[in-house]
Amino acid sequence: MDRFFNPSSVVVIGSSNSPFNLGASISYALSCLGYTGRMFAVNSKGEDVHGSRGFKSVFDIPGEVDLAIVLTPARVVPAIVRECGEKGIRHLIIETAEFSEAGEEGKRLQEEISECAREFGIRFLGPNCLGTINAHNKFCCFFGITPGMYDGVFDRPGSISFIIQSGGIGALIIDSFRKDITNINKVVSIGNKEDVDESDLIEYFKGDNTEVICLYLESIKNGRKLLETAKRTKKPVLIYKVGRTGEGSKAAMSHTAGMANNDVIFESACRQAGIVRLKSISELYTLPKMFTSMPLMKGKRVAVFTNSGAFGGITADLIVESGLEMASFSEETKERLRSTAKLFNVSNPVDLGPTLGKQTFIEIWDAILSSDRVDGLLAVPNVWQKVVVEAICELGNICKKYDKPAAIYIPNAIDRILSIRTEYNLPVFESPEEATRALTVSYQHYRSLGRKEKEALAV
Amino acid sequence: MDRFFNPSSVVVIGSSNSPFNLGASISYALSCLGYTGRMFAVNSKGEDVHGSRGFKSVFDIPGEVDLAIVLTPARVVPAIVRECGEKGIRHLIIETAEFSEAGEEGKRLQEEISECAREFGIRFLGPNCLGTINAHNKFCCFFGITPGMYDGVFDRPGSISFIIQSGGIGALIIDSFRKDITNINKVVSIGNKEDVDESDLIEYFKGDNTEVICLYLESIKNGRKLLETAKRTKKPVLIYKVGRTGEGSKAAMSHTAGMANNDVIFESACRQAGIVRLKSISELYTLPKMFTSMPLMKGKRVAVFTNSGAFGGITADLIVESGLEMASFSEETKERLRSTAKLFNVSNPVDLGPTLGKQTFIEIWDAILSSDRVDGLLAVPNVWQKVVVEAICELGNICKKYDKPAAIYIPNAIDRILSIRTEYNLPVFESPEEATRALTVSYQHYRSLGRKEKEALAV
Repeated sequence: MDRFFNPSSVVVIGSSNSPFNLGASISYALSCLGYTGRMFAVNSKGEDVHGSRGFKSVFDIPGEVDLAIVLTPARVVPAIVRECGEKGIRHLIIETAEFSEAGEEGKRLQEEISECAREFGIRFLGPNCLGTINAHNKFCCFFGITPGMYDGVFDRPGSISFIIQSGGIGALIIDSFRKDITNINKVVSIGNKEDVDESDLIEYFKGDNTEVICLYLESIKNGRKLLETAKRTKKPVLIYKVGRTGEGSKAAMSHTAGMANNDVIFESACRQAGIVRLKSISELYTLPKMFTSMPLMKGKRVAVFTNSGAFGGITADLIVESGLEMASFSEETKERLRSTAKLFNVSNPVDLGPTLGKQTFIEIWDAILSSDRVDGLLAVPNVWQKVVVEAICELGNICKKYDKPAAIYIPNAIDRILSIRTEYNLPVFESPEEATRALTVSYQHYRSLGRKEKEALAV
Repeated sequence: MDRFFNPSSVVVIGSSNSPFNLGASISYALSCLGYTGRMFAVNSKGEDVHGSRGFKSVFDIPGEVDLAIVLTPARVVPAIVRECGEKGIRHLIIETAEFSEAGEEGKRLQEEISECAREFGIRFLGPNCLGTINAHNKFCCFFGITPGMYDGVFDRPGSISFIIQSGGIGALIIDSFRKDITNINKVVSIGNKEDVDESDLIEYFKGDNTEVICLYLESIKNGRKLLETAKRTKKPVLIYKVGRTGEGSKAAMSHTAGMANNDVIFESACRQAGIVRLKSISELYTLPKMFTSMPLMKGKRVAVFTNSGAFGGITADLIVESGLEMASFSEETKERLRSTAKLFNVSNPVDLGPTLGKQTFIEIWDAILSSDRVDGLLAVPNVWQKVVVEAICELGNICKKYDKPAAIYIPNAIDRILSIRTEYNLPVFESPEEATRALTVSYQHYRSLGRKEKEALAV
């Protein structure tokens, strides 16, 4: 599977210098992003394209080729697959569309490709996909890339990997990480996933340098396989799936030809396999930072800290509605809180008046997180003064000390939240709902890890 | 009620030149924001404060005073209320805290104030509140304001009015409108609402230049009164209420001394009175633009347009889950759509490939919105090129032409959404969930208007 992300040589079949040629955009991306493997292009004229040496056929390319990227008209793809097979290429990314998502003729073509690939032992991604990105080695075979578009990914490689069944969602995710503290490790667009599917890729990301595995799916190819693969994975697996309703399934079908799946079955599979099911598309890029920047939450008792009184009530509602609990402090904890500053409320939610020194915040958070009646902190500090941001910068250390997480939301306009987050590299969420959700999924993953370990022992 | 927002003379009792004096921040705000009424300050030295003429007592102020703002220690407030009464002041904003939210002694003091006010026919806001803002006449008696803090409100007055039971939420709302196309008309913080309550203020906003009435409540003072007032209001009334759970109510109680209310009763009251109940605090500032920038949605059949295929399925799920329906196009509409461009899908959701000219978008949207099988449009155009933004700029006119709304979401990182929204003054939402929700509340308000009209005829 690693060849799809780390090929030492790659050919783009259908890359030429004609105007609007999409294959050329891949050759261009490979050359300008800094990928260092050997690069070839195949086109009818055999011409070089953006620094990739050109040939009329794969047979003319000297030596072995790790990976072929196919972006030609659909009808010629079966013949190209055969040629690749005969050349000895065993990994293909078929980006061309107009296959099973487009009707009967496309379906037939897709089956033909599949048979041919089996014959040669070829593994392939797609058809109807965008390909892969590997931020660490600057490999990118997404078509339609223009210079600078994804600089944020390659300049600052991260540890989150994505398996997506839509190029558009890939672009959205890449764009959104620009404004966050985590970043992308690898992205793979699976399209109609005739051969390589989501489970194969989870299996791969289980073993590489990925910390969090995220999926956007329009259909599940093989539910049993997904369930079994996810069960063996200790890394968090986060899935957003379209098709919770009949209308949603229908729309997805016209997009990537997914079969309508029974959503109830998927839901229960998630529970069994310890998959975190996401509730909105934005959770794909907002929640991973909870796993990379904070310890897991090992119980459901949450303490709330706020210095903007209203958020005590708002977050208490959200915590209870999420199935978590409001922690109940011991007299000792309350006494410690009383000694820190004038608090409006020393019970949970802790409500701090207009303060003061950075140290006050730190003492309060230490008092809360050191309590054995508290499993995690929902912190809603109001950022009036710079000193509050400086205090928040220390919160991560207190969390590490007690091995408990904090989810932070600062009640400001979204642009201010974004700028504080990126400037100080802080795991700040964009709404109280998102922060509560982050604690919820953290605890959910912790519990499923426990179940997985038990099952592993039982075997 | 208008005196609270449009006083021709105002005294701040407890405004002095001592360091950290909160009253002084009000005198300062009045003088520097551009309020043009007469301004006085009362303090023990009788000194002038930031351009407000100073006196030792209200009795010394020459002539009548429309409004007194009280920000003194709680224990002296009853005596001050009496003095104001004797001076003939009939409107008070009591911003001082430490009343019923702080325990038995505070509760007693609050009752004392109330009795005294009744004796003199005084109406008052608070105690434990922030006061009022009127963007149009640049009147602001929020304490703790620093220069420039709320410039966005006064530079660009809007038509949304807020009744809030928390100063912190007020600040968040004001901050957030900086990045939106609508803006604030008036804000009133009601605190412990011993006298003037949410219903009195809805009644007032019903008759002024407000277009949308938004509330943040921690408790309902008089459910019957709220129900009856909202029933007589044709303007949209949007409420976020804390205390959906027992823990939320408990937390709110320590903040503004609200009584725990039965949430089930509130929910059913909202339905009866045509109140739109908000699901998150951010909806207080994100949803009003749907009412100010688009016609109401008069049925539940929604068409989806996207040029980022995945969003067809994502939004179809959201529409069905919201209780709306995916519109089903006539053959005629499909034919018209086919004639505009190469579409991936001419059924609903309409999926447009990589295009092209501004005119194509406009023709497609016209074809959709002109159909008598469509009540509204959920548009998810992908902004790759400037031409797409230019097309979106025209969408408002098509909506006006057919008297149907469109909710727009552009799948980009949040900072790009914000910048397109403000630069082009477009009603763009921040997520597909928010856009779907906007259509849902639009239709909800339309239906309740119908019910209200029927009931009015029946009377």
